[in-house]
Parts: sequence; C-alpha cells; structure tokens
Amino acid sequence: MSLRDQLKQMVESVGGGMGAVIMGYDGIAIDEYIKPEATIDIQMMAIEYAAMLKEIKKTIEVLNSGAVEEISINTDRAQVLIRIINDDFFVVMALQSEGNYGKGRYLLRVEAPELHAGLQ
Amino acid sequence: MSLRDQLKQMVESVGGGMGAVIMGYDGIAIDEYIKPEATIDIQMMAIEYAAMLKEIKKTIEVLNSGAVEEISINTDRAQVLIRIINDDFFVVMALQSEGNYGKGRYLLRVEAPELHAGLQ
Repeated sequence: MSLRDQLKQMVESVGGGMGAVIMGYDGIAIDEYIKPEATIDIQMMAIEYAAMLKEIKKTIEVLNSGAVEEISINTDRAQVLIRIINDDFFVVMALQSEGNYGKGRYLLRVEAPELHAGLQ
Repeated sequence: MSLRDQLKQMVESVGGGMGAVIMGYDGIAIDEYIKPEATIDIQMMAIEYAAMLKEIKKTIEVLNSGAVEEISINTDRAQVLIRIINDDFFVVMALQSEGNYGKGRYLLRVEAPELHAGLQ
C-alpha cells in the first residue's frame, strides 16, 4: 500500500479524522491525505509544527527525559496527534474536537512501523 | 483545599503519577507536588516547557486553529500532560510510561476550574 493510501485509511477509519501528513523536520511533506471538508489548514500546521518539534526534541534531550514518541496538541477546534517515525520524519493527524482521540493514538502507534518501512 | 493539596490529590489518584506543577508562562512555579521517587526532574521540565508553550500558543494563533487547551508529550520514559489554566498559568502533570494517561487527562480537565479558582 502506498504511503498516501495508508494515511487515507487511518484518516477515514479513525472517526472525526480531517487529514494526515508525513513530513520531514525540514518542513517538507512526503505525502498527505486531507479531506476536502477539513476546517483547519493541516499542511501549513504540519510545517509550523516541524520547527516546533525540533525545539521540543532538543528540550527533552537536554532534560534527559527519554526519546519523544508522541505529542498531541488539542484546541477548542481540533485535536492534533503527532507521532515520531524516526530521526528524519514524523506523521501528523488532525481530528475534529469530537473525533476519536484514543483510536487516533492507537492507529498512529500501530501504523508507525509500516509508515517507517514505506519511507525506506 | 490548597493548590498543593489539589495537585497532591491528582498525582496520588491518577495511577503512575510522579508529580504536578502549576506554573506561569514566565517559568515561575506557583505550587507543586512531586513524589520523592520521581525519575525525571519535573520542575526543570516545567520551566523548559513554559518557554515552549509560548511558542506553541503563538503558532496556533497564527494558524487560526483555536485556543490551546491541552498538550501532551510522551517519551519512552514518561508521559507529560499540560493543561492550560488561563492566559497566565498552566499545570503540568508527569506520569510514568505505564501511568493512566486517560485518567490523567480527565483529572486535569475536571480539576482545571478549581485550580483556576485557587489562583484568584
């Protein structure tokens, strides 16, 4: 299955999914699947998060509190889940506020190895 | 109940709690409860996160994707939950990797108004 198909399957099955993007820390998207009805600009968001993630990883390293695996940022308009794939790439999935947060985390965790494989 | 007692009650009841800190975005802690056996430096972490949170709030604002309510950063050593209390303060709760993440999010959400009241 192509990376885009994997992303599509996650977004369509999670419940309340708006889109997902695989991106490098340099802010360049590798692949994405975004529903036309998405209410936030997911690609722009992912680009902004790429810079922030670098900061977060650095901070966590300085604090010696482990390797970052997952970050989520929830607002009153959206739930954004970020899963680190490796030292170069991460995947962002955006859900509506009432989307299935638990299932989103689960899907990202179990699909990360396959996404990783697809990036080789 | 004092702020510290509220934090203590949350940390002791969540399952796998290591500590919690109420902090301003200036990195000054208002109150905290940290278990002696905590394996990460929660206060130092909260200080580092204060600066990062400012960045994250600014980014979210620029993207017009709503008001930040909750952030979590999970590593292979700890789960860190951050709940925004108001424009000045946030609360950080750190759990062990195997701690009860869902209950942590729930407790922070339901206790935030009382913490807010305690800060007036």
